[in-house]
Amino acid sequence: MKTFTRRARALPQISDSTVRRLSHYYRVLEEVEAEGRRVISSRRLAEREGITSAQVRKDLSCFGSFGRRGLGYDVAHLREEIRAILGLERRWRVAVVGAGNIGTALLAYRGFANQGFDVVAVFDREPGRVGARLGHLVVQDVQALPAFAAREPIEIGVIATPVGAAQEVADLLVAAGARGILNFAPRKLFVPAQVALRTVDMAMEFESLSFALARAKAKRPRARR
Amino acid sequence: MKTFTRRARALPQISDSTVRRLSHYYRVLEEVEAEGRRVISSRRLAEREGITSAQVRKDLSCFGSFGRRGLGYDVAHLREEIRAILGLERRWRVAVVGAGNIGTALLAYRGFANQGFDVVAVFDREPGRVGARLGHLVVQDVQALPAFAAREPIEIGVIATPVGAAQEVADLLVAAGARGILNFAPRKLFVPAQVALRTVDMAMEFESLSFALARAKAKRPRARR
Repeated sequence: MKTFTRRARALPQISDSTVRRLSHYYRVLEEVEAEGRRVISSRRLAEREGITSAQVRKDLSCFGSFGRRGLGYDVAHLREEIRAILGLERRWRVAVVGAGNIGTALLAYRGFANQGFDVVAVFDREPGRVGARLGHLVVQDVQALPAFAAREPIEIGVIATPVGAAQEVADLLVAAGARGILNFAPRKLFVPAQVALRTVDMAMEFESLSFALARAKAKRPRARR
Repeated sequence: MKTFTRRARALPQISDSTVRRLSHYYRVLEEVEAEGRRVISSRRLAEREGITSAQVRKDLSCFGSFGRRGLGYDVAHLREEIRAILGLERRWRVAVVGAGNIGTALLAYRGFANQGFDVVAVFDREPGRVGARLGHLVVQDVQALPAFAAREPIEIGVIATPVGAAQEVADLLVAAGARGILNFAPRKLFVPAQVALRTVDMAMEFESLSFALARAKAKRPRARR
């Protein structure tokens, strides 16, 4: 790990796209490891629309030298390395603000705990929701967030509130010490530079589909005359 | 448009990452257009972690020549072009399968209609949900999906069901003629090559944050001795 850390410091910024691809490689590696395979080619790792083997090799070379030419990558080793790069070797404390549909869906998804994300608290401001049980937690009043965070640090905050409350909640989370924010509200938020912010933009996912569909249509050969 | 279509046909595959960045540029362009600005630099378009001006120019050059060196891009023109590239010039008919938390959250989000995505039907198989009103729609029994699609074509299907039902629903949507599927279930789905499939992986969003947080930690200077 020491070696990786030192290398990473000297590196240029890694784009969101690269991180996404690392997450993708991680999933493929888990899959092939479960199948009992020990070695994987960059071609198999690429297996997704628009990723090339060259891209895989380039992405992985950013973080050190994992593969051997012509021999492929050692599955277990590469999976462990990507796990470390993605910060999944440790557990992260997550607080969800907003106990509506998205907050509820997040709490119902058991996969997060397996990946090291522990939802430790859920907050809302609606009196009808505060005090209700949601998964393994009881919804707390959002006014209790600062006191909660002072006792039990929040590392990642999830904003699953209506759009009008999102910036206010972001400010609250930042003041409470959150270093990462995942925002589901469809608006741009402002946070200090040292806080990592990601916005899940559902419309962007739809646009990715309409792009593919419009393109497929354009490519389809016309009816013969 | 003719010109673009012809160009696109000759192009290599466009990666998911590029499409995501186009969606991002589109949002920035909408923003600056609302501010009344007419010209934008590639640097301003890049404004997001990990995108460089060179990347912007490269992305846009894939689709034709939009900017003039040193003068920047014409905001209205570029927005229209990206709108066309993303397939947002027309409306898309969307069916949501699964009237749980995610389905409900999707139906509550009014932004989709503005962007050309019309949710025309919502299906579930739980007797307790079928017949209930959800937004502007009434939840239909999923068994009625084929007949519905025969009457009113479904172009994009959204899978918001429990993970166990996801593949079955994907098969149903494909048989009903959907050409694009947006999957919220955390599992790999199999669809024919001509169907575009996107999976929204919430865990991937969290991983993007843990990556940033772990990296920030590694970069932070040690306490002085």
